[in-house]
Amino acid sequence: MELFYLAHLEADQLDISFSTEESKHINKVLRKKVGEKITVTNGKGLEWVGEITHSEARKVTAKNQSTHQHKYNDANLHIAIAPTKSNDRMEWFLEKVTEIGITQITPIICDHSERKVIKPERMKKILVGAIKQSAQFHLPQLNPACSFKKFMDKDVAENKLIAHCREGIKKELHQIKNLNAGLIILIGPEGDFSEKEIEMARNNAVKEISLGNQRLRTETAGIVACSAVGTLRKLL
Amino acid sequence: MELFYLAHLEADQLDISFSTEESKHINKVLRKKVGEKITVTNGKGLEWVGEITHSEARKVTAKNQSTHQHKYNDANLHIAIAPTKSNDRMEWFLEKVTEIGITQITPIICDHSERKVIKPERMKKILVGAIKQSAQFHLPQLNPACSFKKFMDKDVAENKLIAHCREGIKKELHQIKNLNAGLIILIGPEGDFSEKEIEMARNNAVKEISLGNQRLRTETAGIVACSAVGTLRKLL
Repeated sequence: MELFYLAHLEADQLDISFSTEESKHINKVLRKKVGEKITVTNGKGLEWVGEITHSEARKVTAKNQSTHQHKYNDANLHIAIAPTKSNDRMEWFLEKVTEIGITQITPIICDHSERKVIKPERMKKILVGAIKQSAQFHLPQLNPACSFKKFMDKDVAENKLIAHCREGIKKELHQIKNLNAGLIILIGPEGDFSEKEIEMARNNAVKEISLGNQRLRTETAGIVACSAVGTLRKLL
Repeated sequence: MELFYLAHLEADQLDISFSTEESKHINKVLRKKVGEKITVTNGKGLEWVGEITHSEARKVTAKNQSTHQHKYNDANLHIAIAPTKSNDRMEWFLEKVTEIGITQITPIICDHSERKVIKPERMKKILVGAIKQSAQFHLPQLNPACSFKKFMDKDVAENKLIAHCREGIKKELHQIKNLNAGLIILIGPEGDFSEKEIEMARNNAVKEISLGNQRLRTETAGIVACSAVGTLRKLL
């Protein structure tokens, strides 16, 4: 199934007129013809199935046939991650965790962050591409970048975990209770979290975790944490 | 710890003379000076610690101080994967599974493979880079590419699993018994395994598995399988 994305699509919308870019893709690349089916989502669980009513290189339209609202069954999984020095690595992280399954992502700027500026539009595009590719109807929420300190100050109900490679009393993910409840996992930059940041996390009742004995790159740590939570939640 | 790699290093070797390329890296990039420590592995479990005895842009040498042979504690995990159309995606797979932990990789050429030729030297380089980066002393074994059929014909003692998205009676990884024994997981190309290949696998007592409800890209499926086995083995 080829999945399309329209942020503002509503369940009761009868017709869709695709953008010039999408039209070109549908008509020229996929060679979709009048009468063929097309599936569109708004990234908020909606599956809108329509029939193509017009197909030209610059203009494709469709009329609705059926809609279905998909529930989001999993508990929240929110990864707060320091953007990697290389943009590529960050984009891989975004693509992979979206494919695997994640609800929220927050870029956090840490003491050792070399990259302090991010491009949210570009990041959002990667997320949209990944849900289209993996045929998912929920777009992960991309929060604005924020400093580690500010992130710590936020009052949230979720279980917070911090993955780091420094000394400390750390548990492994499978030893954490209530993985099935909402979860926030913090992943540090290339130079890891600073001692000050880990101390701040401890004072905020954030649990320290280890993702194994290997020294993982930032983006690998994020992918492994996301994948491990998915695996472990199946066992609960 | 900065880790260096020398394929032919022996445990009883008293001195090392680094290649011009490595010397340049040690002297110019890392600015290592005479008297400083350096750690080298042969990718077969050896940790060779030496002291730098000479440091010039084109010639760095070290003499041995101590050696340690690391045992490989995990059971075999062998992933046989169809090379992705995009080289980048294959290289990301190689880097990530090496960081996460894997023992063997075999590129398999399938009915729907768009890429039928691979560059083993380039792939080996990625694996070496990843063990250096993640400070591991065991280099995964990269087998020559082979056809799906030939791979099926190989007589191996390990449990074989095939991950695919077609119809079939499939288990999830956590429902597979004896994950702690040697394991081979087959991952298909962009267009999935063909019906003929899945039939062939069934006839060879290969167990069918699903990696979840999402439609994962080839390289993501490989990374998720590797990570999930690592997570599940910790629970056994």
